[in-house]
Amino acid sequence: MPVLDFWFEFASTYSYPAAMRIGALARDAGVSVCWRPFLLGPIFASQGWDNSPFNIYPAKGRYMWRDLERLCASLDLPFQRPRQFPQNGLVAARIALSALDEGWGEEFIAAVYREQFGEGRVIGDPAVIRDILLNLKRDPKALFERAQTDEVKGRLRAQTEEAKERGIFGAPSFTTADGELFWGNDRLEQAIAWAKKT
Amino acid sequence: MPVLDFWFEFASTYSYPAAMRIGALARDAGVSVCWRPFLLGPIFASQGWDNSPFNIYPAKGRYMWRDLERLCASLDLPFQRPRQFPQNGLVAARIALSALDEGWGEEFIAAVYREQFGEGRVIGDPAVIRDILLNLKRDPKALFERAQTDEVKGRLRAQTEEAKERGIFGAPSFTTADGELFWGNDRLEQAIAWAKKT
Repeated sequence: MPVLDFWFEFASTYSYPAAMRIGALARDAGVSVCWRPFLLGPIFASQGWDNSPFNIYPAKGRYMWRDLERLCASLDLPFQRPRQFPQNGLVAARIALSALDEGWGEEFIAAVYREQFGEGRVIGDPAVIRDILLNLKRDPKALFERAQTDEVKGRLRAQTEEAKERGIFGAPSFTTADGELFWGNDRLEQAIAWAKKT
Repeated sequence: MPVLDFWFEFASTYSYPAAMRIGALARDAGVSVCWRPFLLGPIFASQGWDNSPFNIYPAKGRYMWRDLERLCASLDLPFQRPRQFPQNGLVAARIALSALDEGWGEEFIAAVYREQFGEGRVIGDPAVIRDILLNLKRDPKALFERAQTDEVKGRLRAQTEEAKERGIFGAPSFTTADGELFWGNDRLEQAIAWAKKT
């Protein structure tokens, strides 16, 4: 089965609709998705940014929130602008790695995005992640502990490094086995079609 | 008939597919297009950029050229990466204002984009613009002279100022009578549908 790598960052607004759509679209196309959480912070820092470009460039930020609102409405996805942006998705990304290993990654990732951009909650708050894990009948204590291990920290760092090496500069991004890169929720369908034909 | 304002900059890569597509799509939808050339330079300068973000951020630039190539292939538009980027579209934008007044604006605009991104030519070179005008059976001398008048210069400046006031930060952009802004070739269909229902 052809594979599409899906690179997402929990703080990224347009990763939300992509994460909510990719599962069903890929299944329909017969494409397998490799879910790859990574961190945009180090990549933005290497471009000289210490914040989201949506905060650095206010006109772009104002547009993005309105565009995201329209997009969610058209996709029937809940939307509420969180009071904090960008949020710290570090712990969520580390836990996502364990969740993906164990086969409940998609549910966890969808829940984190829904809480953040559908309910406007702060995912950098451990209590919010804890509630998500309890809802999924998972053990928060064990998962938070595993998120602090050098192994998991190192895997997330390596994944972020790999994203950069593949030319990724934003999220969501999609990469195919033959080395094509697609950026943005708007390119999801095209990325799946490309993966399918390779 | 509902109206959609189409804000384009000749130096902008993604304005090329938008300019080539908008006429037929809008006609099919029963929407009238108001073609509005403007300059991104002053808008980028107010964001602290003295160059295209595609040059300032090389990973983004590399991606854009590949994405544009794929996009043009899928739309059956000729594509050749010009040796110079971004190009100086000032004179072309001023002449476009006269051409639009006289009813041959769409043809002129399409020809300028085709020369630049379809043939890889340099539209800041007056000889290239002159050839385009001769092909369209227009008088280059009169048009270059008119492009140097204070009236035409002032109109382009005012249009750029209006773009900024409407929150435009990139090209192509589309605005509707009820104040919605859409950014990017990817949003063309959505912008037309929005204009149609207002």
